[in-house]
Amino acid sequence: MLYSQVEYILQQIFPSGLTKPLIIGVSGGPDSSCLLDILNRLGYPLIIAHLNHGLRVEADAEADLVGQVGKNLGIKVILGKEDVPAFAQQNKLSIEEAARVLRYRFLFTQAIQIGAQAVAVAHSADDQVETMMMHLLRGTGLSGLKGMSIVALPNSWSEDIALIRPLLSSWRQEIVQYCQDRDLHPIQDKSNQDTSYYRNRLRHELIPYLESYNPQVRKALWRTAQTLAADEEMLEEAVGKVWGECVVDEGPGYAAFRYTVLVGQSKGMQRRLFRQGLNRVKPGLRDVDYETVERAVGFIANPARTAYISLSGGCYLLLEGDRLWLAGWDAYLPGFEWPQLPGGAAISLDVPGEIELPHGWSLKADLVCRSDLPRSFSTNTDAFTAWLSFERLKLPLLIRARRPGDRFQPLGMLDRKVKLSDLMINAKLPRRARSAWPLVYSDETIVWVPGHAISNAVRIDEDTQQVVIMRLHRRPDVEEMSDFSRSG
Amino acid sequence: MLYSQVEYILQQIFPSGLTKPLIIGVSGGPDSSCLLDILNRLGYPLIIAHLNHGLRVEADAEADLVGQVGKNLGIKVILGKEDVPAFAQQNKLSIEEAARVLRYRFLFTQAIQIGAQAVAVAHSADDQVETMMMHLLRGTGLSGLKGMSIVALPNSWSEDIALIRPLLSSWRQEIVQYCQDRDLHPIQDKSNQDTSYYRNRLRHELIPYLESYNPQVRKALWRTAQTLAADEEMLEEAVGKVWGECVVDEGPGYAAFRYTVLVGQSKGMQRRLFRQGLNRVKPGLRDVDYETVERAVGFIANPARTAYISLSGGCYLLLEGDRLWLAGWDAYLPGFEWPQLPGGAAISLDVPGEIELPHGWSLKADLVCRSDLPRSFSTNTDAFTAWLSFERLKLPLLIRARRPGDRFQPLGMLDRKVKLSDLMINAKLPRRARSAWPLVYSDETIVWVPGHAISNAVRIDEDTQQVVIMRLHRRPDVEEMSDFSRSG
Repeated sequence: MLYSQVEYILQQIFPSGLTKPLIIGVSGGPDSSCLLDILNRLGYPLIIAHLNHGLRVEADAEADLVGQVGKNLGIKVILGKEDVPAFAQQNKLSIEEAARVLRYRFLFTQAIQIGAQAVAVAHSADDQVETMMMHLLRGTGLSGLKGMSIVALPNSWSEDIALIRPLLSSWRQEIVQYCQDRDLHPIQDKSNQDTSYYRNRLRHELIPYLESYNPQVRKALWRTAQTLAADEEMLEEAVGKVWGECVVDEGPGYAAFRYTVLVGQSKGMQRRLFRQGLNRVKPGLRDVDYETVERAVGFIANPARTAYISLSGGCYLLLEGDRLWLAGWDAYLPGFEWPQLPGGAAISLDVPGEIELPHGWSLKADLVCRSDLPRSFSTNTDAFTAWLSFERLKLPLLIRARRPGDRFQPLGMLDRKVKLSDLMINAKLPRRARSAWPLVYSDETIVWVPGHAISNAVRIDEDTQQVVIMRLHRRPDVEEMSDFSRSG
Repeated sequence: MLYSQVEYILQQIFPSGLTKPLIIGVSGGPDSSCLLDILNRLGYPLIIAHLNHGLRVEADAEADLVGQVGKNLGIKVILGKEDVPAFAQQNKLSIEEAARVLRYRFLFTQAIQIGAQAVAVAHSADDQVETMMMHLLRGTGLSGLKGMSIVALPNSWSEDIALIRPLLSSWRQEIVQYCQDRDLHPIQDKSNQDTSYYRNRLRHELIPYLESYNPQVRKALWRTAQTLAADEEMLEEAVGKVWGECVVDEGPGYAAFRYTVLVGQSKGMQRRLFRQGLNRVKPGLRDVDYETVERAVGFIANPARTAYISLSGGCYLLLEGDRLWLAGWDAYLPGFEWPQLPGGAAISLDVPGEIELPHGWSLKADLVCRSDLPRSFSTNTDAFTAWLSFERLKLPLLIRARRPGDRFQPLGMLDRKVKLSDLMINAKLPRRARSAWPLVYSDETIVWVPGHAISNAVRIDEDTQQVVIMRLHRRPDVEEMSDFSRSG
């Protein structure tokens, strides 16, 4: 019964058999002993891998025993050893979690070296139910509740070597029975009885307790996981489609969403797109917590005035025009081609005169007689061109980036100054361009914020004889300025 | 805190306020007392509804008390009374479930009579968590795990009157505190402490026990429900889209899927399409069990040789060409226009001669000299035309439907006969057309199965002088024969 069920599952996994060896993780307990026996009976090319966790006094003896089993069966055995407690401490993991990480890492390191077809582990239906409950109690979504997969490819350890769990539909009781029937002598790991381990407590206390509510609860939970896995697959497929429509740029440490497409999605879809984005931007992050996701979704619905939000995990969201950037702090975002001053630079500009800025930008100042000006000068609507009263300027002008506390008195504002930082937000200058945005100073006063306004202090009035015409522009042979100019 | 949170939720539900009264279900306990107080403070037009379940000795006194509360507030109170134990017994429900059904029925009956805008009930965040765990322990999918909705419309009781749960994000502890702060005096229902009730045991034993695994478990579960609800919404949307592409016909008690489209969907989608189909075909069925769904999905992947499967709940699946019917036993399926004999009829046919069958079909027999036949007669490939040896027939022929145990010796089969039922399956005659399919008998022998083959016993051989040409055909002015002719 168990044998033919597992045989059927393996035929589904490998319809045309195996061309390369299968690595099987063998602890020596009932589950892995049973799986090893079945795989061996089916004639699959096997390699046994056993990791000595060094956690219990019997560990060395057990490694020897697994070595002996392999010898008897004529199967190669790879023995590994790791210091689990040290790894747990270094990485702030529980002992169980550290053992898990090291075990899979060991199995897949071997599998990659050998060029194995797949890695087989012996999780049972009971393990499935316990995993599901563990996730549920800790707090999870569908991806946690669906439990483990019979075939996981890609998985966290490899893109092309599958992790398979042929016993995932078999109950522990059947497995123990199989071992008896086949006269196998699995190791009885005493630590499995130790309920100070979280999972053991789940196994020996929680599940039996839940059975007092429904004697069939394990079966019910297993089926729920099964159904949810199919639901999750459907959702991931749907997310993949929308991702394609929605993500316009992706690179190391960043992804850019089309904001108008993203904001039109359902909340559930937004959550999943954000999670997927975070997985790609920060592949290391394992669990994204609920608050982070909710904050991100909240920001999408209602971006702050700053169009920016900092998120846990060293990430941020930044809205620029129709582009929503999800990025790590250390990522270099593309399209950084606004007018910018090289770090900390302060450049003198004579009138007339011209200076070059990076990315093909230039800032030019011309001097004309007031009488030569076209009549329409007062209706200048180009924010990248300015008309200043020459008489009110102190030369040379200074071009530099903003400094903390900078204030500015825009044209038409007579009695007070505004904070430059507020003004830049209101003017919708791209956030990441603000700190190196070129500003025109006369003496210590900002006389022009290119892209926004001139200072009231240098406005043209009845006394003006000569006019300085300033222009910040980009050479036409340089690629068109991106987002900001289109959306600002 | 609680007040402003609930106020915010209500503003989201009713952005432009209420035009019609809101029915609020009031048991008199803390939850409904709190909700009543908030709704009343917000100035909503209210009507209190209280159902006396007649389960406890205090029930009448409690109804009086709720009446008094309404009087004090100047709010109309509707009191109802039901015999819960009797209803439970009649409908084989638990007392809790019976009370639940009667309560909602009462609330919505009142709401419809009055023309209410919505029905408000006072489920709390704790109720949400308990409901989720109840579903999980009984066995459920996403639709059960997502718990209750703050706004349910449509719901099981109405298409246009919303069921709302403004306290679904508020914890019982906050609610009790609110009642104290506002000096409300809710009824303390002693049966809430009675752990012989399933839900009470969940509340007083299971949840505290789970808190020993994670002190924040209630919050974690509540959030999981929240996330899953959004996932479920996405999936239902996706199912709606595929349903539109996949379902080609729908009527009372049946739905027809385009099989090729259905079979190309993921297993998860197939499960959901089938569930949705069943909900439409049999609106009464509440929970479709796991096995039924898995059997249906198994049949879709691999339809039995009979192209038919009977399912629990009085339903069946039937594959005809590219059409998969999901139907109740009592449903009359459309497109029943194959050649059929009126029930039990046996009709004589002379040679030459012709008989009329329903739906424009006719069966005609002509007699020709062998020498007049075209040379190519032996390659007749039209299964609805037959060439029989006149000398081997006994006239008149008899046209009638099959009888149990009928056997047939197709052309070319020399030494044995096959069961007619097997032959009809192999010939892919539509299942529901088989029992009234017209067969041509000579004496007691079937000489022709129209649509399939003639009998070996009446084949044309060297001795044949005269040939009977039979043809089963449909008048061209009658609508084209459906599925079978196209797919057979």
